[in-house]
Amino acid sequence: MEEKKTFDQAVMEMIVLLKEKNYKKTREKLLEHNEADIAEALEEILEETGIDTTIIVFRMLPKDISVEVFSRLPSDDQKEIINRITEKELTYIIDELDFDDKIDVLEELPANVVDKILEKTPKKERHQINTFLNYPDNCAGTLMTPDYISLEKEMTVREALAYIKNEGMDSETIYTCYVKEGSRKLKGIVSLRTLVVSDDNTKIADIMREDFVSINVYEDQEEVSEMFKKYGYLAMPVVDNEQRLVGIITMDDILDVIEEENTEDIERMAGVMDSSTTEYLNTGVGQHVKSRLPWLIFLMVSLMITGAIISQFEETLSQVIVLVAYLPLLMGTGGNTGSQTSTLVIRSMAIGDLELKDALKVLWKEFRISITVGLILSVMNFGKVMLIDGESWKIAVTVSAAMLIIVTFAKVIGGMLPMAAKKIKIDPALMANPMIASITDMFSATIYLVMASLILGI
Amino acid sequence: MEEKKTFDQAVMEMIVLLKEKNYKKTREKLLEHNEADIAEALEEILEETGIDTTIIVFRMLPKDISVEVFSRLPSDDQKEIINRITEKELTYIIDELDFDDKIDVLEELPANVVDKILEKTPKKERHQINTFLNYPDNCAGTLMTPDYISLEKEMTVREALAYIKNEGMDSETIYTCYVKEGSRKLKGIVSLRTLVVSDDNTKIADIMREDFVSINVYEDQEEVSEMFKKYGYLAMPVVDNEQRLVGIITMDDILDVIEEENTEDIERMAGVMDSSTTEYLNTGVGQHVKSRLPWLIFLMVSLMITGAIISQFEETLSQVIVLVAYLPLLMGTGGNTGSQTSTLVIRSMAIGDLELKDALKVLWKEFRISITVGLILSVMNFGKVMLIDGESWKIAVTVSAAMLIIVTFAKVIGGMLPMAAKKIKIDPALMANPMIASITDMFSATIYLVMASLILGI
Repeated sequence: MEEKKTFDQAVMEMIVLLKEKNYKKTREKLLEHNEADIAEALEEILEETGIDTTIIVFRMLPKDISVEVFSRLPSDDQKEIINRITEKELTYIIDELDFDDKIDVLEELPANVVDKILEKTPKKERHQINTFLNYPDNCAGTLMTPDYISLEKEMTVREALAYIKNEGMDSETIYTCYVKEGSRKLKGIVSLRTLVVSDDNTKIADIMREDFVSINVYEDQEEVSEMFKKYGYLAMPVVDNEQRLVGIITMDDILDVIEEENTEDIERMAGVMDSSTTEYLNTGVGQHVKSRLPWLIFLMVSLMITGAIISQFEETLSQVIVLVAYLPLLMGTGGNTGSQTSTLVIRSMAIGDLELKDALKVLWKEFRISITVGLILSVMNFGKVMLIDGESWKIAVTVSAAMLIIVTFAKVIGGMLPMAAKKIKIDPALMANPMIASITDMFSATIYLVMASLILGI
Repeated sequence: MEEKKTFDQAVMEMIVLLKEKNYKKTREKLLEHNEADIAEALEEILEETGIDTTIIVFRMLPKDISVEVFSRLPSDDQKEIINRITEKELTYIIDELDFDDKIDVLEELPANVVDKILEKTPKKERHQINTFLNYPDNCAGTLMTPDYISLEKEMTVREALAYIKNEGMDSETIYTCYVKEGSRKLKGIVSLRTLVVSDDNTKIADIMREDFVSINVYEDQEEVSEMFKKYGYLAMPVVDNEQRLVGIITMDDILDVIEEENTEDIERMAGVMDSSTTEYLNTGVGQHVKSRLPWLIFLMVSLMITGAIISQFEETLSQVIVLVAYLPLLMGTGGNTGSQTSTLVIRSMAIGDLELKDALKVLWKEFRISITVGLILSVMNFGKVMLIDGESWKIAVTVSAAMLIIVTFAKVIGGMLPMAAKKIKIDPALMANPMIASITDMFSATIYLVMASLILGI
């Protein structure tokens, strides 16, 4: 933390310097840091001093560093910079970017700009870029790079190392190398570790692993990140439907995927529609409204139905108006307890701890938990209603019995709905808190008021 | 997905074979897969056939594979196996495990078992193990391993590669090597990539990077994962307060940390107390109750307060009983809209998109969003109350005006509370859905009923 504080201070100093138009000193200070830090500083500078100053700073960076920094900026910031630099500068940056970063940038650019850039690209690379741009969103194809080291089965370790020495600098990783045969079919993989510790005259064929795991190019990125978590490899090969090697995915790109998938789950669980990958502050008011309103309206309709249910009991309520005071208690507790369960179940399914076949076990566990929790809350409420509120035992029985039934229902439905959603291939995260709360609301109101009518004999 | 299905089927077949006590065939089938898959199969076997059969299968594995498989099992399963194997088998496994896995296992064992194992360990390693076991939970020290490659500044690339060839097999990674001087102070790092592409006679001092980033051994694991995300390094050095190199952390261990931290956040956001790292199904009913009950009771008390507020308006409600039907609508919408905002803000802070200094920007953005959302919902409700429910315009005005105020309040409080929590160093995730919903409940009930009294003149 100490180090971070110093870095934040350094950035603040740069911003002060920039406001005094002391560009030379800013540049000096900036270049004391590495590319990732410079990118973070630039983000801050953009936010605090605007795009004009940022462009001046960006142009002052040495060319090779400016490309590295650019590749680390959030895509919103990249777009702002692209809009301000010359076509020549843009072409230079695109040329120098690693292939996977290049694709990421091109995907965000308008089609006419992409066409202009591609005009100047050699035909072979242009073809490859077009193939990569056409992979569906969020599939393995959009995460991979074609820059990997290919070795031949007949090479010796010495030849392989010499080859890597020549080709290694343009490759995304040299730590895992790939052996193909015939029509680009992947035959084996060999790690640089194995190469380095093996005897120089050993043949690649003798040390390559043939029990490798590969990823289909159309595999969903969530599944891809699960595979990285399971196997712990630094890089994994991506193959097409004919098992031909088309690229590799490296672990560092997976960190972002995990974060992105978790954000998507968390937002869905709170009833926010996919708000794309833009940052909170960079998302406009209109876009925020668009991602929040649909669920709010959907939930509002379900709350209106709850209201209509309550209307049916106006007679009961107007006779014993004190019943109204316990309505939020029962509905709220039902919602809270259901959300706890649904969250635990959704998360356990997401990280692979729970599968559909465990449904009965979940049901049995939640049933026992809910009876325990429900009884404790019931007894507390019985005491509170009779002793603190001084109401009749009939009302105390109504509230506490309803509590037990509602908690049990909420936990069971909170556990089952996400699993049912998964069964019919809907994202379980959509079944979380607001949805469960709405369903338990309707149920809670009905149970409570029916029981009140029966017990109070109204 | 195709591949996964086949693997699941293969596991099912093994379980059938095991139930027929056909161990030889099971072993054959098992050994067709790699260690990560065998571990997954073993988990399944444990769940379906019990520990006795699992131990038989585990003992049938070749010794080196059994250690690899063991290191990949969840810690609950490891414990079950440890309880059943002989001391000799346990000592063998512990000896052969990678250092960081060894620490993970030892941490879970009872003290007397650890002492017994350490008795047989050489003094130097015993000392090191004790140091590692004593690092506080969730800090960098618990993630690192001391098995890294150390190079000397004066070595040539040829000498370094020869050294790695000898030592490389015992090291966690050979892809980043470390150069120390004097009293173990970290001086530079050099990647194997640089070594492999450099000329054989180059001195390490000339190619090592001195602008490396290091992690303090007491740094929180959440901060560590942020650094990996930012820099994208495969491994990072860990230093003590005197900048001496004490270990390294590799990226593959960070995948689990990210997942764990996200799970913790998600659970807290749903009002579940830290449920430790055990799996849902392996957590007992008592433990589940313990992690859920505290928040439920806390929230129940706040719902009781809402109830008490409503009681104050019994007079109003009994005169216009239809007001009760709109109470869940307003309270529920307030809770839903507040949760959306708090979730977005908490998540944005967690992934570093939002900082405390952005508080005013968040306030201004949420204010504009809430006016937009609030107006739309207000108009919809005004229409519904008058046209569909056929109530008076006074009731329609009460409901729709309360809606606008409640939505605005909920979004502002949903945005500000998590930031306030962070300011006073409470985990913002604790301020999420249930908490915000409870606060907005109280506010919603009050606003609605006060407005009703005023507008309806009761």
